[in-house]
Amino acid sequence: MKSGVLTLVCPDRRGIVSPVFSFLCEIGANITEMDQHSTEVTGGTFFMRVAFSFEQGEVDYDGFVSEFGGVVAGMEATWRIFDDAVKLKMGILVSKHEHCLINLLFRVMKDEIGIEVPFVISNHEDVGGIVAAFGVPFFHVPSRSGDRRESEILDLVKNSEGLILARYMQILSPDFLSQYGRDIINIHHSFLPSFKGADPYQQAFDRGVKIIGATGHFVTEDLDEGPIISQEVTHVTHRDGAARMRQVGRDVERVVLAEAVRLYAEHRVFRYGNKTIVF
Amino acid sequence: MKSGVLTLVCPDRRGIVSPVFSFLCEIGANITEMDQHSTEVTGGTFFMRVAFSFEQGEVDYDGFVSEFGGVVAGMEATWRIFDDAVKLKMGILVSKHEHCLINLLFRVMKDEIGIEVPFVISNHEDVGGIVAAFGVPFFHVPSRSGDRRESEILDLVKNSEGLILARYMQILSPDFLSQYGRDIINIHHSFLPSFKGADPYQQAFDRGVKIIGATGHFVTEDLDEGPIISQEVTHVTHRDGAARMRQVGRDVERVVLAEAVRLYAEHRVFRYGNKTIVF
Amino acid sequence: MKSGVLTLVCPDRRGIVSPVFSFLCEIGANITEMDQHSTEVTGGTFFMRVAFSFEQGEVDYDGFVSEFGGVVAGMEATWRIFDDAVKLKMGILVSKHEHCLINLLFRVMKDEIGIEVPFVISNHEDVGGIVAAFGVPFFHVPSRSGDRRESEILDLVKNSEGLILARYMQILSPDFLSQYGRDIINIHHSFLPSFKGADPYQQAFDRGVKIIGATGHFVTEDLDEGPIISQEVTHVTHRDGAARMRQVGRDVERVVLAEAVRLYAEHRVFRYGNKTIVF
Amino acid sequence: MKSGVLTLVCPDRRGIVSPVFSFLCEIGANITEMDQHSTEVTGGTFFMRVAFSFEQGEVDYDGFVSEFGGVVAGMEATWRIFDDAVKLKMGILVSKHEHCLINLLFRVMKDEIGIEVPFVISNHEDVGGIVAAFGVPFFHVPSRSGDRRESEILDLVKNSEGLILARYMQILSPDFLSQYGRDIINIHHSFLPSFKGADPYQQAFDRGVKIIGATGHFVTEDLDEGPIISQEVTHVTHRDGAARMRQVGRDVERVVLAEAVRLYAEHRVFRYGNKTIVF
Repeated sequence: MKSGVLTLVCPDRRGIVSPVFSFLCEIGANITEMDQHSTEVTGGTFFMRVAFSFEQGEVDYDGFVSEFGGVVAGMEATWRIFDDAVKLKMGILVSKHEHCLINLLFRVMKDEIGIEVPFVISNHEDVGGIVAAFGVPFFHVPSRSGDRRESEILDLVKNSEGLILARYMQILSPDFLSQYGRDIINIHHSFLPSFKGADPYQQAFDRGVKIIGATGHFVTEDLDEGPIISQEVTHVTHRDGAARMRQVGRDVERVVLAEAVRLYAEHRVFRYGNKTIVF
Repeated sequence: MKSGVLTLVCPDRRGIVSPVFSFLCEIGANITEMDQHSTEVTGGTFFMRVAFSFEQGEVDYDGFVSEFGGVVAGMEATWRIFDDAVKLKMGILVSKHEHCLINLLFRVMKDEIGIEVPFVISNHEDVGGIVAAFGVPFFHVPSRSGDRRESEILDLVKNSEGLILARYMQILSPDFLSQYGRDIINIHHSFLPSFKGADPYQQAFDRGVKIIGATGHFVTEDLDEGPIISQEVTHVTHRDGAARMRQVGRDVERVVLAEAVRLYAEHRVFRYGNKTIVF
Repeated sequence: MKSGVLTLVCPDRRGIVSPVFSFLCEIGANITEMDQHSTEVTGGTFFMRVAFSFEQGEVDYDGFVSEFGGVVAGMEATWRIFDDAVKLKMGILVSKHEHCLINLLFRVMKDEIGIEVPFVISNHEDVGGIVAAFGVPFFHVPSRSGDRRESEILDLVKNSEGLILARYMQILSPDFLSQYGRDIINIHHSFLPSFKGADPYQQAFDRGVKIIGATGHFVTEDLDEGPIISQEVTHVTHRDGAARMRQVGRDVERVVLAEAVRLYAEHRVFRYGNKTIVF
Repeated sequence: MKSGVLTLVCPDRRGIVSPVFSFLCEIGANITEMDQHSTEVTGGTFFMRVAFSFEQGEVDYDGFVSEFGGVVAGMEATWRIFDDAVKLKMGILVSKHEHCLINLLFRVMKDEIGIEVPFVISNHEDVGGIVAAFGVPFFHVPSRSGDRRESEILDLVKNSEGLILARYMQILSPDFLSQYGRDIINIHHSFLPSFKGADPYQQAFDRGVKIIGATGHFVTEDLDEGPIISQEVTHVTHRDGAARMRQVGRDVERVVLAEAVRLYAEHRVFRYGNKTIVF
């Protein structure tokens, strides 16, 4: 391990930071980035992210992990150490709109987003060609009337460490979510909590708003209610019909989803109830 | 009349623009700005705003108006001609938060917003001093338990041509609205339709959004549902509690309300169902 | 011709709009969009763009054009009538960075930008594959030491109606520009006039700015001094090195260039000295 | 001392953070906010800001400071400990445009910016009234031809801890700057480094930019070249002349200067060569 990220969440109290830094110092780590946040002045939850690198040679990952466990014993901490050399495996689910998908695959290819994409799954065949062009395995699982074939999807995604819904127009059932059990990031094409549900651009047009947006968030059982990771907006006018909003909105969707995934891939996103801490 | 603005709304059909411009040309007007919008390709509603000036001398306002009536006869048009020399009289209602109020009075003083403010009414005495400093008449109408004293307010506002609610925390009754019968512009301290109702910054904090905003809109009987005139947003992070959002939000509120009133004062805002056309 | 756009530029004086609209009305056109601008209250230059459609059947394009010539005779007007069914042929020049190129080709494919791309030319072979995937002819014209082979490029572009430099890192000579003689749109990866010339993100980092941007502009003999069409920005912090700025900047570049080309393709952009009018 | 901020700058090396936190822990401080930044992966400069509070009772400031000196001995560190109960004394210099001044005084009054304003100095008498209304001492030091009376100003400002130029149109001489020797924050009404020098809005209009902005920065001998603290922008169009840009720009100037001063007052701004670190 040459460089990596340490994340830690625990009940806030005095004396958390010092032993962590002492330990990192002892094993010869340079701290390249550090963020912390407490949800309350006292008695809240403490979040920390530390990026580190080793100046000379490598450090044994397993030894690092087991020693660190001793350092934070008694802190009731949830913590992880991520090796920068190991990329998160995040699969993508998509329906017909491919603008977010292409954008993600392009950024992954350019190493702007540090994930590995082991597969793309779609309920439509349309995007198969572009996925193949990027050299990513593609699976076509068409929805049948009354059957979204979730067990087949569950089987396909079982080895991934997270999922990205890049304009996936099927609703994943609570059963699917609990069985998969890992993080799923979705792009909703509105500035949540405005315009939940179907066709948010039409809703935005009907309400006559002057700004539209998009939201990257974690999927939970409550549709469009999950913790928000990233949001961005753009101005519209009375000239812009719902069709034009859909078009303009694509630029925002692309950027917002890519940003949410990048932040997540860099272990900058912490879930906290229905919110996120984003370092 | 040396310069002014003509606004016209009518069912869309061919041959509206041409006679209007022929007439303006004949009476010697320079067109300094012109905007039009149709809500549909055919069969919709047509909106037009023309700013004009007279190069030489003045033009008789009453003659202008009566002749123009002939030009658009048969168009089923609603139209108005505003003389730039005559400012709209818009009263202001406010509660305790004075940041929007001061901002408005300052801009009116600097002639950035072309209105006359005949009075400020508040249910609190606090802002009386600053209003006096701007030389504007101030009326203190405290709410009594179960009685917002709307008939007194109605009496005070009866000579205004419109009202501005600059963080006025009382809800005006449907009865008040129908009796007043003129436009009322409100600032809502959220990015509508998100976070209607009370304490939107707390709602925003609770939902964990990454962007907050403000909305300038016309008041209707349905609270926070009126036609939107202007909106603006600003980014927040997990570091920003509800108190900090309230503070940051003030900058957005100030700008959004001032912009809504300026656009309205320049006759750029047209109501159309629950939406606005803003030229 | 079923629908189209009329553009007109002439010295400002009374009586321009009326005959134009009378004529359009007579030939049965619906005005779907209209914009005008005068550079001065009197004595300036007048710009007009009218989008129109014909409700019933088609209109003879040549007849339309020749009749319209009569209408504006004596106005010293420069005018054009564009048939919506005929797309502008705009070639693309690119070097190694393909993010703007792919974005443009994708939008053209999705009909978000109404141009035809007859060719892509690059001084590098790298982008040949992706261009081929979009079914667009690709020409590789490598620069040789001291010879950018402009005469070959000139020969390849001669049938285009305009060019787009989508991160083309060669400087086109004044001789090339005068011989080509048509509009060329460039993306500069800074918020002009800041950071002209090479490696603007490094310049931005060195200066310590808190916002970076991109600029879509017409190419003129004075490098990075041509009329600006579109600009957009994004915030950065002390955490963002030049490399990260380059990455973040791509999102802005993509959007800014696509917007400049879309506006141009819809005949919304008028050059006026070193500025633009953008309707 | 009940709460405060610790700032520290030193050559980057391992083992800085740990002893600092150990010490804070020992004396019973709660860390409420913590930021750090290294300018290079190794061998750069290390910046840290820690906000802390004491849960129970107070802590002796002088003892705190002298003990902390021992903790960081040998680190070649520049450090300071600020007591939240003691506000920075920052004087304001202004010319005729009072929008930034009023905004600052209003925010200080509302405790949105945690400074004390011991005086306002202007080369014009105009703003005296509004300054008096806020209960702040006002000094009128008119410039005489060829004499900006800097020695008088120097005498007036000698007890301040920093200065704010809130649209002060006089250039402070290198001699003044070196004699004053403390930080001076200026608002420049352009998006630096674009449009340095006089009348930037006119320059922006002449260049035909589509976005204008403002910059809060430290004053140095090189005019408009000092380290940038905050920047913000707003969109303009061909419709906006230089006068309208000046008006729109005020909103941006107000926000940008207030933000720069707030960040500075909270000890979030670190100078580093010609740049800033802003936590």
